[in-house]
Amino acid sequence: MFDFIPIGVAAKDAARELANAGTEKKNLALRFIAEELISNKRAIIDKNRADVKAAEAKGVKSSLVDRLYLNEKRIEGIAEGVSQVIALPDPVGTLESGGVRPNGLRVSKIRVPLGVVGIIYESRPNVTVDAAALCLKSGNATVLKGGSDALGTNTLLTEIMRGCLLKAGLPADSIQLLQDTSREAATAMMQAHGLVDVLIPRGGAGLIRSCVENASVPVIETGVGNCHIYVDSAANLEMAIDIIDNAKTSRPGVCNACETVLLHRDIAEEILPKLKKRLDQHNVEIRGCEITKMILGKCVVPATEEDWATEYLDYILAIRVVDNIYDAIDHIRKYSSGHSECIVTDSLPAAEEFQRQIDAAAVYVNASTRFTDGFELGLGAEIGISTAKLHARGPMGLKELTTIKYLINGNGQIR
Amino acid sequence: MFDFIPIGVAAKDAARELANAGTEKKNLALRFIAEELISNKRAIIDKNRADVKAAEAKGVKSSLVDRLYLNEKRIEGIAEGVSQVIALPDPVGTLESGGVRPNGLRVSKIRVPLGVVGIIYESRPNVTVDAAALCLKSGNATVLKGGSDALGTNTLLTEIMRGCLLKAGLPADSIQLLQDTSREAATAMMQAHGLVDVLIPRGGAGLIRSCVENASVPVIETGVGNCHIYVDSAANLEMAIDIIDNAKTSRPGVCNACETVLLHRDIAEEILPKLKKRLDQHNVEIRGCEITKMILGKCVVPATEEDWATEYLDYILAIRVVDNIYDAIDHIRKYSSGHSECIVTDSLPAAEEFQRQIDAAAVYVNASTRFTDGFELGLGAEIGISTAKLHARGPMGLKELTTIKYLINGNGQIR
Repeated sequence: MFDFIPIGVAAKDAARELANAGTEKKNLALRFIAEELISNKRAIIDKNRADVKAAEAKGVKSSLVDRLYLNEKRIEGIAEGVSQVIALPDPVGTLESGGVRPNGLRVSKIRVPLGVVGIIYESRPNVTVDAAALCLKSGNATVLKGGSDALGTNTLLTEIMRGCLLKAGLPADSIQLLQDTSREAATAMMQAHGLVDVLIPRGGAGLIRSCVENASVPVIETGVGNCHIYVDSAANLEMAIDIIDNAKTSRPGVCNACETVLLHRDIAEEILPKLKKRLDQHNVEIRGCEITKMILGKCVVPATEEDWATEYLDYILAIRVVDNIYDAIDHIRKYSSGHSECIVTDSLPAAEEFQRQIDAAAVYVNASTRFTDGFELGLGAEIGISTAKLHARGPMGLKELTTIKYLINGNGQIR
Repeated sequence: MFDFIPIGVAAKDAARELANAGTEKKNLALRFIAEELISNKRAIIDKNRADVKAAEAKGVKSSLVDRLYLNEKRIEGIAEGVSQVIALPDPVGTLESGGVRPNGLRVSKIRVPLGVVGIIYESRPNVTVDAAALCLKSGNATVLKGGSDALGTNTLLTEIMRGCLLKAGLPADSIQLLQDTSREAATAMMQAHGLVDVLIPRGGAGLIRSCVENASVPVIETGVGNCHIYVDSAANLEMAIDIIDNAKTSRPGVCNACETVLLHRDIAEEILPKLKKRLDQHNVEIRGCEITKMILGKCVVPATEEDWATEYLDYILAIRVVDNIYDAIDHIRKYSSGHSECIVTDSLPAAEEFQRQIDAAAVYVNASTRFTDGFELGLGAEIGISTAKLHARGPMGLKELTTIKYLINGNGQIR
């Protein structure tokens, strides 16, 4: 049976050392990692080929195999990501607030690492390095649990990083990878209360749900985006079409892509044929309500209740015609995953009402939902996009990988 | 069988209205609550007498009956607490950060309410009003689950508050009390993922553990304080005795009280007799390590492993003599609940090492642990003291009852 405790204890011990390691040492380790990824490119690609071959032989579907696949360019991209993390400011030690209380106590609220961060993810091996680098920079130890298909690649990437930690004088156990990729191992990590300070699942809705249901350690839900764009009666329709096209087709497989468009009934007849023409360039399948079907004809697949709730992550768009902004808001409240929601309108009251009423990490007026991203919003990098409300909401950067501690200094104060 | 869903849905609906209710309306409701608590004093006391009688007849132990008991002065204190909440600044709508991105997108990160806050607590009926008032001020709907012994009192208090909400033009369901006080009802609330945004248990270690283990909604652990005071070899011993006495005896039943004292071996012989003499004034029982027992004699109860881990909440103090600061730090790491830890020393390196190494919400130098408190640290009021690391750590005030939302305004930006 899988025993998480020795791994968790090793991570806790490493976390203690990392918490006070200082920025220079952490950056040195990151510099080594960026360099060694490049100098070990050949070995990584060899390991990855074996993983890819095995996955293909097992009949894993091609979109998943593509996520698993690494080539020179992708490895260079991963190393470049690590170099960018070096350039980001270290949040550890930042003074959040402070002052002297009337009784003379000096209070400083400072940022400290969370401790041990657990990451459960699916096939992408780049997460192995991206997540470990962000955790290292913010002074946290990481325990990674990747998918079984990527085990060979992930193991080599982790070995390279652990070597770099040692070279920089930091504990190798700052980064650990579970060799057991079973569900039992994942569950053991989810329930390691006191050893894992936060669990960040990165993957599909099923993985997130499993973590929420089974974890006794705190979980930050990330990355499920059933995002909507509502086109108001007062919208600039050309702008609306550009935004919908971009939010749906620029990268359909990501969480900030648009999944459902809601159209005010007054503009539905005018916009729908033009929108369809634009989406046809990417062969986007339309699943529409009855009115959409009436206007566009039989090319529209009738939308079911399930369609409104689905994050397609594909060239499929659900479209519903609504009577007014309130119907749009109600629809979004019912089906939104709280990620990114958008209104296209030139009406100031409509824009304000939408931003006031919609409860999501990011609420847009007249821009593509694709901007919900750590780089785009100026955080520098992100470990995920939180759709939870506690601790972090929206893109999680280095600061969101820390917590605070009160330092209180006196000279004998009693109460 | 208990069905939480209608209660959760009613809370969600109320939360939507509350989120945009504005400070004036919320303060008006709070003003009514403070007034009506006073004008209904007699009725509250009558209800409370019945609860107290029933608890006594059931053989509930007297310290718990005391927590349940209300009199005129306690009700006035509760009303006064509500008035203080009126005076606190409303965090909702506060701009946390913002600016214009290079592409012209205007980004504002603003504070919004969490939504629905669940509170599970034990016998104290003051929590019913304190928690509801803080949640109301921060724009959150509250679902309260108190103990069965206080059901009559809590029901009347809730009815009074709901009447005040209506009078102020706010939904009554902004504050709800579970009439079912069974474990099943508590579990149903813990698992109402999507209806309850955060659960804050207020009570003993057993309640907190049960929430952590059973909840699928996010939980903020509060109020378990196994707090330590370490007296260094370079300490001012008079100061140390004052601080220990205050932290142990000024209010032994609260979470920021001291439970274990660690003494550097070099000062143990000098301080122990004086410390014992001081603690004798409050008949504090000492449970000590072997050296403590050797120095103080047979009045010392030998401490067991369990003593180091126990939050006594009583006139009992565990004492251990350690070889040096590192042994003290190791002991605290092993047994601390991450609440409040203190070093008494005049050595700057020792003070710095302790504050660097100890991982707790509040780390003190030369002051009583009793200052870990929302009022004392200037937050104005608190709904609990978080010993968790996510979202809130230390005293949780109004700001910690909110989350953020990104408002992103453009004029057609695509990516």
